[in-house]
Amino acid sequence: MIKVAIDGMGGDRSPLMVIGGILRAAQRYPNVHFIVFGNRDKIQPLLAKKHFAPIVDKVDIIHTDEVVTMDESPSNAIRRGRNSSMGLALNALRENQVDCVISAGNTGALMGMAKIMIKVVEGIERPAMASLCPTIRGETVMLDLGANISATPYQLEQFALMGKIFANATLGIEKPTVGLLNIGSEALKGPDEVRAAAALLEKIPETINYKGFIEANEIVAGKVDVVVMDGYSGNIALKAMEGVANFLMIGIKNVYSSGFLTKIGFFLMRGPMKHFFHRVDPRVHNGAVFLGLNGIVVKSHGGTDSLGFAHAISVGIDTIQHGFLAKVNAELPSLMRDEANGS
Amino acid sequence: MIKVAIDGMGGDRSPLMVIGGILRAAQRYPNVHFIVFGNRDKIQPLLAKKHFAPIVDKVDIIHTDEVVTMDESPSNAIRRGRNSSMGLALNALRENQVDCVISAGNTGALMGMAKIMIKVVEGIERPAMASLCPTIRGETVMLDLGANISATPYQLEQFALMGKIFANATLGIEKPTVGLLNIGSEALKGPDEVRAAAALLEKIPETINYKGFIEANEIVAGKVDVVVMDGYSGNIALKAMEGVANFLMIGIKNVYSSGFLTKIGFFLMRGPMKHFFHRVDPRVHNGAVFLGLNGIVVKSHGGTDSLGFAHAISVGIDTIQHGFLAKVNAELPSLMRDEANGS
Repeated sequence: MIKVAIDGMGGDRSPLMVIGGILRAAQRYPNVHFIVFGNRDKIQPLLAKKHFAPIVDKVDIIHTDEVVTMDESPSNAIRRGRNSSMGLALNALRENQVDCVISAGNTGALMGMAKIMIKVVEGIERPAMASLCPTIRGETVMLDLGANISATPYQLEQFALMGKIFANATLGIEKPTVGLLNIGSEALKGPDEVRAAAALLEKIPETINYKGFIEANEIVAGKVDVVVMDGYSGNIALKAMEGVANFLMIGIKNVYSSGFLTKIGFFLMRGPMKHFFHRVDPRVHNGAVFLGLNGIVVKSHGGTDSLGFAHAISVGIDTIQHGFLAKVNAELPSLMRDEANGS
Repeated sequence: MIKVAIDGMGGDRSPLMVIGGILRAAQRYPNVHFIVFGNRDKIQPLLAKKHFAPIVDKVDIIHTDEVVTMDESPSNAIRRGRNSSMGLALNALRENQVDCVISAGNTGALMGMAKIMIKVVEGIERPAMASLCPTIRGETVMLDLGANISATPYQLEQFALMGKIFANATLGIEKPTVGLLNIGSEALKGPDEVRAAAALLEKIPETINYKGFIEANEIVAGKVDVVVMDGYSGNIALKAMEGVANFLMIGIKNVYSSGFLTKIGFFLMRGPMKHFFHRVDPRVHNGAVFLGLNGIVVKSHGGTDSLGFAHAISVGIDTIQHGFLAKVNAELPSLMRDEANGS
């Protein structure tokens, strides 16, 4: 039985969005139990509704009045957030009462508190946020998506290793191809850190199937299985992509509803169109895992809905079931050995 | 009569794509004359074809065997590229024989050579690449898109001023709103340079209508008229957006052609759908202007086709017609005065 700790108060539309997400996730994972941390006066009345009857027995509520707000600094959250819904959820993971934490709250606070409470895997300098992005030929792992504003070449190399293991575990690809995000494919382009990271990755072909620089348009083209970048670039790339996906989907829906004939046209195309829309819907790819922690912590978009939150829960459960943590701990020493050997 | 210098050999599909672009642009701008620099043996036979008869009298060819290759370093191009198709086109602009230069060649080489040959506007520390991006409510100016890998706070402030004047000139918006790209809307997020640039922009409300930080998904939402960023972030954001736009358009075309009913459905929707596709087509937004030079130089995507190249030509001609250069020279001193006053 997997146990999932949920920050019941994180995100713009909590706790309703959170409870709705649990309802959806529980259908996919019938053997999972949920512990929701947050304001019982707000959560209990929701669970009492008939709509949520299927999950009443699967959800425990641990009450707290305190929350970490969306604009709170990480240092402030660390100082006074112990008893917040986020802090208590992380504490449950630290004390092995649950197998993972899902939160749609403040990203910096979640990362800051998780680093202190869950601890970073020994040897990893910085955790990174990883997520799956839909591509023309399947899915690609992107990391870092914003855990760190910058990254050293060695940290980028570590991200590449963690991304490889994540692709390995969640996509089932044995030797995933890895690229570094840059603004050109030539070796002399881009920031010093990125070029130095490329030099490191070129030296460990046994460990990483490195394919060179990837430009941002090549991410969705599915040129490689794992795209590595610093968190500032990754956050910009991911959000730019989500923005355009939303823009185009709204635009095409406006085309549908623009006239009588277009509505009939839509009716005739609705099956494959809905299938395609589902595949590229950012909510279906919601949920970034903090790689490099001694525990599974998943960040959901703050602005998502219950469908998106359910996917963030799925990401957490899948990461547990694929044994990601054990694989990182098993493979990390080989990279550190390479490093020690002067690679 | 406007005269446009064209690098006839830049881009993946030159010179055919270039000549095709001139044909399309000449329909929109009947009073423009084109001077194409490149290999006469390759260009002349194209112009001799019946298809291109409408532009035979509008095109002069200046022969050169030399080209700047796509993977050549800027320093190498500067050293030996004087007589290349790119170098000769820039030289024609320097000698006032033409009003602008359009090239689909090597970006770094074009910028490097242009800075030396065309010179940077006095007072501008770094030129920036600017382009128009389609949004839900119209178009937004993005800069820098890759002229510089990094930017100081003062350089970002200068980009904001140049972007404002560009929006003013090309979009006709009198007091365009300006935002800084960042990974969060809160004042304490993001790199030091971006936060310092925000502090500078907040001090000059008379000059710049600054609206704060913009996240990458808010660019296409049209939250502001001008989005300012360093060239590395801008290049990543733009390419990520183009990649998704292409991916979604291919996906939707696959939906159309997936069956008999979907084809009928497409037929019924084709009018508004084609209109929408045209609006978001990256080729229709091809052409980035190098702002901050004493002349109009436009970089076209290397991989574009004749439709895209025609739009790059349009960008150059529109920028001339809107009197952009004169406006920069008129407004720049006010920013520098603010700066001198300790803003």
